[in-house]
Amino acid sequence: MLDFNVIQKDLYSRARLGTLKTSHGSFNTPVFMPVGTQATVKTMTPEEVYNTGGRIILGNTYHLYLRPGHDLIQDAGGLHNFMNWHGPILTDSGGFQVFSLGPLRTITEDGVTFRSHLDGSEHFFSPEKAMEIQMSLGSDIAMAFDECSPYPCSWEEASDAVKRTTRWAARCKECHNRQDQSVFGIIQGGVYNELREKSINDLLDINFPGYGIGGLSVGEPKDLMYSVLEYTTPRLPADRPRYLMGVGSPDCIFEAVSRGVDMFDCVLPTRMARNGSVFTSEGKLVIRNARYARDFKPLDENCNCYACTNYSRAYIRHLIKANEILGIRLTTIHNLHFMARLMHNIRQAIREGTFLKFKENFLERFFYKT
Amino acid sequence: MLDFNVIQKDLYSRARLGTLKTSHGSFNTPVFMPVGTQATVKTMTPEEVYNTGGRIILGNTYHLYLRPGHDLIQDAGGLHNFMNWHGPILTDSGGFQVFSLGPLRTITEDGVTFRSHLDGSEHFFSPEKAMEIQMSLGSDIAMAFDECSPYPCSWEEASDAVKRTTRWAARCKECHNRQDQSVFGIIQGGVYNELREKSINDLLDINFPGYGIGGLSVGEPKDLMYSVLEYTTPRLPADRPRYLMGVGSPDCIFEAVSRGVDMFDCVLPTRMARNGSVFTSEGKLVIRNARYARDFKPLDENCNCYACTNYSRAYIRHLIKANEILGIRLTTIHNLHFMARLMHNIRQAIREGTFLKFKENFLERFFYKT
Repeated sequence: MLDFNVIQKDLYSRARLGTLKTSHGSFNTPVFMPVGTQATVKTMTPEEVYNTGGRIILGNTYHLYLRPGHDLIQDAGGLHNFMNWHGPILTDSGGFQVFSLGPLRTITEDGVTFRSHLDGSEHFFSPEKAMEIQMSLGSDIAMAFDECSPYPCSWEEASDAVKRTTRWAARCKECHNRQDQSVFGIIQGGVYNELREKSINDLLDINFPGYGIGGLSVGEPKDLMYSVLEYTTPRLPADRPRYLMGVGSPDCIFEAVSRGVDMFDCVLPTRMARNGSVFTSEGKLVIRNARYARDFKPLDENCNCYACTNYSRAYIRHLIKANEILGIRLTTIHNLHFMARLMHNIRQAIREGTFLKFKENFLERFFYKT
Repeated sequence: MLDFNVIQKDLYSRARLGTLKTSHGSFNTPVFMPVGTQATVKTMTPEEVYNTGGRIILGNTYHLYLRPGHDLIQDAGGLHNFMNWHGPILTDSGGFQVFSLGPLRTITEDGVTFRSHLDGSEHFFSPEKAMEIQMSLGSDIAMAFDECSPYPCSWEEASDAVKRTTRWAARCKECHNRQDQSVFGIIQGGVYNELREKSINDLLDINFPGYGIGGLSVGEPKDLMYSVLEYTTPRLPADRPRYLMGVGSPDCIFEAVSRGVDMFDCVLPTRMARNGSVFTSEGKLVIRNARYARDFKPLDENCNCYACTNYSRAYIRHLIKANEILGIRLTTIHNLHFMARLMHNIRQAIREGTFLKFKENFLERFFYKT
């Protein structure tokens, strides 16, 4: 089941406020999804993810298939039970990961043969296999198995990828049979508007309850991504959620929301945290820097997360310098809280008709010091 | 301040039930102290430590002096504020750590010159320095700076160490001047009863509010440790707490409690956890073992900790195999909960007059499978 409702549209941009109801609960959009690659949002318990404001998380089909295996997770009662997260889960199709394996994979019309990055063993993903795995995992939203064009990419290559993505999307829809799980199609087309339009029309013919926008944030300049979005989102049906895959820096989120995107995921906040960097209302802060050694202020004086309420920059810097795990737990909590609060404030600004003003103020302050 | 009261003595052993009141709260004895070497109990928040049942933690003077520095911690308002643990803290003197540095240290009557294990820089610890650092840290219980005899060790060497430990203990007492912090003397003497007796008499003359029993669990057979304890504890004043330093395996705790020991610390439960091993009511369990891959039972079916309430062996094994931090967080929570519950059950058995029976039943079950 999936029930999407647009509650309010911004008058001065394409930004929109919505609610999305899944088999494991509802959340408001625009939303940021923390990434839980290996059946855990790195360093965090599910309760901690929820307490930062996370309401839907992402799981990675490729990783879970290889380890511990989707059959094991099915035997555990599905991914929700296995990892003790009882809210909504979206799984990717594994397509992006296996395409990223480069020389380790071969693509045919049937699917993709690839070697495991863990032990070199050979495996095969097809649209049917990607659906089988995601049905075993039991995510609330499954993604169709697509062919993601790289950047740069010729018109011909991007065109072939769009056509194959359409054929594979039809096969995904055909074999999918789990009622409590919805499948999103994925729009490809690289940076070519005509191909984006064709991909949209093809997938609308198949008819999905939501659409991913793929093949962006893969190396192209940000302005080019924004212009592709500018062209793409108005052509997607207004009553279906739109998910910009793999995007999650605050500036990109603002630009995409203002063009009508509803859902985001990105490893950036959690990966940055493990490298000892945090988002603050005044930009990025690298906590390892010597200047914070005796700084007893919180990471962000405008933040009320667990880390900022209880610990100083000096303490968190000490933990990270000493390789103590609590250090990256605290930076992860802070960054996920930052993202959830950012999305909350974006939704509130849309509700109050002040989205563009909020965007301008936030970005000016955020980029002033960086 | 320190206020120790023996509430009940076991009729069939020297085990005793007590309460110890410090400047940061009270706890019951016998007690196990989780080790927070670098101003954090590894992987845990203070709230998590408390929720496992931990009521007093140990901090390491040597490590905190080197990084981030005791002056920085003093500027942060002391160790309690710095790490956000507002319960009792005991700090060791750093003596054991610098003696363990082997060729990196030189001992004179004045103190010990040593090189940092972090960067090779040269430092000097004396009784006065060890007290200065611990006063800066602001722990509730500080330990006197002692000379710990290794095992094996000749009578002459052990005798010299006892004499120096006495002289250093007098210097510690002389320079200590923090009213909210108590200093414990440390009994040395190796495995020689006459030397243990001399060390006790020397330190009783100086008069400390509590006594550490040092130089045990340093490589000697367990039976030898038990026989030294058998001789030592009855000679210590009944109204002062007795702390067996560095001991924490369940069997040693039972044997030491039955000989009248009140306090314990050990890295074993937390270190084992990070290696993927857990204590259960039926002995040690190595969660990495392939046999647990599809085992959906909790780590210990008789445990109600956060890990056992919410996660399966299969899930925790997956996390640890995949190097996910949540895995060692869960095993650490479980092991500290196991230790706290063990101590709770020991106290209850003393209260009910069933300590020796409880000890026998526990150890039989615990060692049956291992």
